[in-house]
Amino acid sequence: MIYSKKIQPFFVPSGESYLSNSDDPELIKLSIGNPPPDGFPVDRIRRVSAEILEERPNSVLNYSTAGGMDSLREAVTKFLNRRGDIVVGPDDTVTITTGGQQAISLAVQLFCDDGDTVLVENPTFMVALDTIKSEGAVPVGVKMDEDGIDLDDLEAKMAAQPKPRLLYIIPDFHNPMGVSMSEHKRREICRLAYKYDIPVLEDNPYYELRYDGDFLPFVKCYDEHGMVALTSSMSKIIAPGMRTGYVIARGQMGLGFAKLKTAVDFHSNSWAQRVCCKLMEEGMEEELTALRELYGRRGRLMVSCLEKCCHPSVRFTRPQGGMFIWVTMPEGVDVKRFAAELMDNHVMVLTGGQFFASGGQDCRSVRLSYSLASEEDIVKAIEIFGRMTYKYCE
Amino acid sequence: MIYSKKIQPFFVPSGESYLSNSDDPELIKLSIGNPPPDGFPVDRIRRVSAEILEERPNSVLNYSTAGGMDSLREAVTKFLNRRGDIVVGPDDTVTITTGGQQAISLAVQLFCDDGDTVLVENPTFMVALDTIKSEGAVPVGVKMDEDGIDLDDLEAKMAAQPKPRLLYIIPDFHNPMGVSMSEHKRREICRLAYKYDIPVLEDNPYYELRYDGDFLPFVKCYDEHGMVALTSSMSKIIAPGMRTGYVIARGQMGLGFAKLKTAVDFHSNSWAQRVCCKLMEEGMEEELTALRELYGRRGRLMVSCLEKCCHPSVRFTRPQGGMFIWVTMPEGVDVKRFAAELMDNHVMVLTGGQFFASGGQDCRSVRLSYSLASEEDIVKAIEIFGRMTYKYCE
Repeated sequence: MIYSKKIQPFFVPSGESYLSNSDDPELIKLSIGNPPPDGFPVDRIRRVSAEILEERPNSVLNYSTAGGMDSLREAVTKFLNRRGDIVVGPDDTVTITTGGQQAISLAVQLFCDDGDTVLVENPTFMVALDTIKSEGAVPVGVKMDEDGIDLDDLEAKMAAQPKPRLLYIIPDFHNPMGVSMSEHKRREICRLAYKYDIPVLEDNPYYELRYDGDFLPFVKCYDEHGMVALTSSMSKIIAPGMRTGYVIARGQMGLGFAKLKTAVDFHSNSWAQRVCCKLMEEGMEEELTALRELYGRRGRLMVSCLEKCCHPSVRFTRPQGGMFIWVTMPEGVDVKRFAAELMDNHVMVLTGGQFFASGGQDCRSVRLSYSLASEEDIVKAIEIFGRMTYKYCE
Repeated sequence: MIYSKKIQPFFVPSGESYLSNSDDPELIKLSIGNPPPDGFPVDRIRRVSAEILEERPNSVLNYSTAGGMDSLREAVTKFLNRRGDIVVGPDDTVTITTGGQQAISLAVQLFCDDGDTVLVENPTFMVALDTIKSEGAVPVGVKMDEDGIDLDDLEAKMAAQPKPRLLYIIPDFHNPMGVSMSEHKRREICRLAYKYDIPVLEDNPYYELRYDGDFLPFVKCYDEHGMVALTSSMSKIIAPGMRTGYVIARGQMGLGFAKLKTAVDFHSNSWAQRVCCKLMEEGMEEELTALRELYGRRGRLMVSCLEKCCHPSVRFTRPQGGMFIWVTMPEGVDVKRFAAELMDNHVMVLTGGQFFASGGQDCRSVRLSYSLASEEDIVKAIEIFGRMTYKYCE
């Protein structure tokens, strides 16, 4: 049998991975970007689940509306528009997806034929690279600055031939860099999207996890011509096991997402849609406040520990939300050896190379996540991390 | 912006659809192939859901194993192997999908680049046609007989160039025809798959709904060389809103499905996986027996009503399970007008043309479903249906 060209890269084992399980009982994992289970609204989910299964079991157990339940689409609309910006407008279609990840997959299906280019931030969410490749497209990296994507490099790559079909960005609390895109760049992204007629997928899963600074409008809010689709999910504000996300786009693009979702798997799990809908209808502000405090405590603590412990030549980002810090070593440091030795010292981080569409082999950064470790563990781990930077940065 | 070639057909409104809602309060819908809600194990699901959310909420709320929970994979294996055949062997990988439909989508991704051919039964599950197209492949129909796919036409089309990449079949209680593939043809399908080196996706969602005759082994059971992947789901044996299905394949093919599922949406909803797993572990035989009796009563009744009421020139299939009967009118009947006039007389059926990869415009069949209508409604609807055949078959 002949396998498709797009599956081929998945049959080559990736050389670089620190995601594998370890037996080390002392290991502190700063590698994993999962939300903290102590932030899941377990009691509310229990109650809401019982109510739904009692009151209208068939709404959970039978087929539902293709592309997602209308009630959840409305709840998402109200939730996103509650701060006053029109995130979801009257001509937008909300499609419910299996996590935000599926929205990436659908966006590639919607805009790309085999071999077409998707522009991505370099580095970007490493799973997105796999998702793009699995749909037959080719991710091409655009340089990143500390305030988001480099506009000159973006324009050069948008102007290239053959024309890229899609731009994929993570504007708030970027994975893996932790940085956020400036307001100026949000506007410019839209201007360039119009100029080169290239649609944008804004992936914004961490948006609600802002603990410092003011909320910036979604990139989609700056878009006047329906060129920006927005995806986010319940994974970071309710629980990731829900696998409930959404993608929102205007006009034909919005209908395209809904049609593709229907063609691919009809709709996502109904129980999760119903539970998320009810939680959003009842209100989530108390939980969101608690989450922001939790992430804020851990994130600020990790930054202050890094400031205290790291060799002065080490640079790192200072996120205002989300869960990631991007730490860059000076020239000459072999970051894979650094991470491996750190692992021997019971601290697990991800080397940065795997987040790059290209050029990852030259990356001297690691990604730290503060979402899962306790404050005690953060202090302990960053002390070890700091000592190691002194060893490697002489 | 430039949309992909594969989305283009979805932006052309399909001319033929009787799926749309109707206000007619008297309407009896024989059009919809949904499982009957009175067959859902609501009480068990309530209990199991409460237990799981109480005992180990994080197993439901957190990320789970990529590609599906190990416990559910084991439960599916035991369930499928419980009759003695080795449906899931030691070299097989079980991947949990969002309904069986997603397995079709993954199979096309696994084997097809843009423009590649997928052989399908003509007619076939109409949603599968959309799923195949949405992944950029081209469905090509193979003639159907009353005992399954026509082997001569299949071999001719397998031998064609460019080589087809995949064969998609529904061997038991075929949708829309209601027929089942003979044992001889199951063996021959495997032989042809080896001879032409073309993998097979066996879609078998109705397998457990056999109410007459003996269970035949899955096509996958005849496969000695790992060329047949099997997909099925919980939709027809537990509840479709679960959106929990699976695809099983050997060796590299099985790993390919798991890798693609992980790349596309990481994993399906955890609550549904856990609930389905526990139901299967506890045992489903009582519910399955009740379902077989329910489908059997309705299916046999519909056949006997058709025998009594239809014009003698009308032919129809006599299913031994599942939920569909395929009724074919004699030459000269305009089946769209027939269905439209039936609709005016409060009976809704699906015209057969939309189930064809090609040649649907010449189809003189309609699909009847007996899964949802009460016995009283079946008698009433088929009386009206029968009278209409006399009007159209003069």
